Amino acid sequence: MDYPIAHTAQIRVNYFDTDQMGVVWHGNYIKYFEMAREELFRSLGLPYAELEKAGVMMPIVDVAVEYKFPAHYDEVLSVETRVAEPPRSRIRVEYVITNARGEVNATGSTTLAFIDAATRRPCRPPASIRGNTAAQR
Amino acid sequence: MDYPIAHTAQIRVNYFDTDQMGVVWHGNYIKYFEMAREELFRSLGLPYAELEKAGVMMPIVDVAVEYKFPAHYDEVLSVETRVAEPPRSRIRVEYVITNARGEVNATGSTTLAFIDAATRRPCRPPASIRGNTAAQR
Amino acid sequence: MDYPIAHTAQIRVNYFDTDQMGVVWHGNYIKYFEMAREELFRSLGLPYAELEKAGVMMPIVDVAVEYKFPAHYDEVLSVETRVAEPPRSRIRVEYVITNARGEVNATGSTTLAFIDAATRRPCRPPASIRGNTAAQR
Amino acid sequence: MDYPIAHTAQIRVNYFDTDQMGVVWHGNYIKYFEMAREELFRSLGLPYAELEKAGVMMPIVDVAVEYKFPAHYDEVLSVETRVAEPPRSRIRVEYVITNARGEVNATGSTTLAFIDAATRRPCRPPASIRGNTAAQR
Repeated sequence: MDYPIAHTAQIRVNYFDTDQMGVVWHGNYIKYFEMAREELFRSLGLPYAELEKAGVMMPIVDVAVEYKFPAHYDEVLSVETRVAEPPRSRIRVEYVITNARGEVNATGSTTLAFIDAATRRPCRPPASIRGNTAAQR
Repeated sequence: MDYPIAHTAQIRVNYFDTDQMGVVWHGNYIKYFEMAREELFRSLGLPYAELEKAGVMMPIVDVAVEYKFPAHYDEVLSVETRVAEPPRSRIRVEYVITNARGEVNATGSTTLAFIDAATRRPCRPPASIRGNTAAQR
Repeated sequence: MDYPIAHTAQIRVNYFDTDQMGVVWHGNYIKYFEMAREELFRSLGLPYAELEKAGVMMPIVDVAVEYKFPAHYDEVLSVETRVAEPPRSRIRVEYVITNARGEVNATGSTTLAFIDAATRRPCRPPASIRGNTAAQR
Repeated sequence: MDYPIAHTAQIRVNYFDTDQMGVVWHGNYIKYFEMAREELFRSLGLPYAELEKAGVMMPIVDVAVEYKFPAHYDEVLSVETRVAEPPRSRIRVEYVITNARGEVNATGSTTLAFIDAATRRPCRPPASIRGNTAAQR
């Protein structure tokens, strides 16, 4: 697999995502990140559900969001996900969320670890996403 | 244990519980029900966390809510829980949510089953909540 | 418009929808109901976002769910929505959620009121969904 | 008011906060942050509900979480909030979440802006929290 890898998910804002300020409650962007990240993995032929069945867990190490412009009910947001570099024991996913007018609502990132579910210790990522660089062969 | 049993929990409405109508999003009452129900079980010396460790699962069979009056951010709601009758393979919990002015925000109920986690089959409730009626001795 | 009206939405279960029992947390079905109901209204050319802009609010009067079979992470659920009768001051939406094997996960219903946002009083539903029965002409 | 200011909130983990990994879903820490931050403001005699009524909005500028140790259902977490410096047009709140055994579950921070609800432009924080430093007199 060649890096960077990227994918864009379309996510419609639900009524229950809003708060009384009339915009998406800020914590819900973490849900949009997760939905988009799962689509990214699925697009790579590596759905997280299968990873988990294969004994690999991917707990979250850190998450960060910068809020640029409020998102509103019923808007369809584009959530672009991007992994710049081949993962080793961790993978870093970056996000840019934009609305239909091209305004950037938020940017952010998540770092996830690869953990062997049996030993609960860090493990290598699945072979198919290790990247094609010489250093990793 | 003598029936009916009852308990009242105090729950403060969070900002993230509201939606853009400026009131608590209706689905969040299910969370208030669960929080109050767990307090009820804890008050009976039977915290759900220990039940689960003891191999009893309590999946939800049904839930219903009737909405009477909107609840607002930062209000402290009283969630009264009540179990009218000793449970057999199922337990029915009823709720009345009121605000500080005594207005009823919502009423509702949940039915939960007692399931043996090992066999995944219905089981009797823990002895301590089976009630004191002659029929059950 | 001729009744009954119906629509089916496809909703993928997110990781954050699950709880430690390994299945969808029961309160999240209310979210699936809302997502599917919004698709239904959109399919009728009557998106709720436009209703709200036009001064019609639709607060929830009651909701009920019966749980039949647990839903799991990453499953794509079919949420069938159905309105059996033309609404007057209220509309009742019924739901059947099934998984890809045809197992029924849950059934339920929501009743919503039509409220004039200016007067906060009940109002008639939009003309386009009032139905074609003689009694209503 | 003298800086730093700090407060510790006690928050019990709900069943609906967990995911199928058997621990608190990572996005829910944002809820714990918000609950603890609101307690902090309330302890300062400045509940956010009153700020909002007084025409001050506090939208989120950024949020970050580092996950150290999983939190579990029914645990009572201590969420320590701290504001190190007097706010100007923004305020930065830092968090440390620990469980009853003193293990740090997560650390994080939120930056909020002060916005005049009428003009939607940045404004000064309320006088009572501007701090006592000479530079600000």
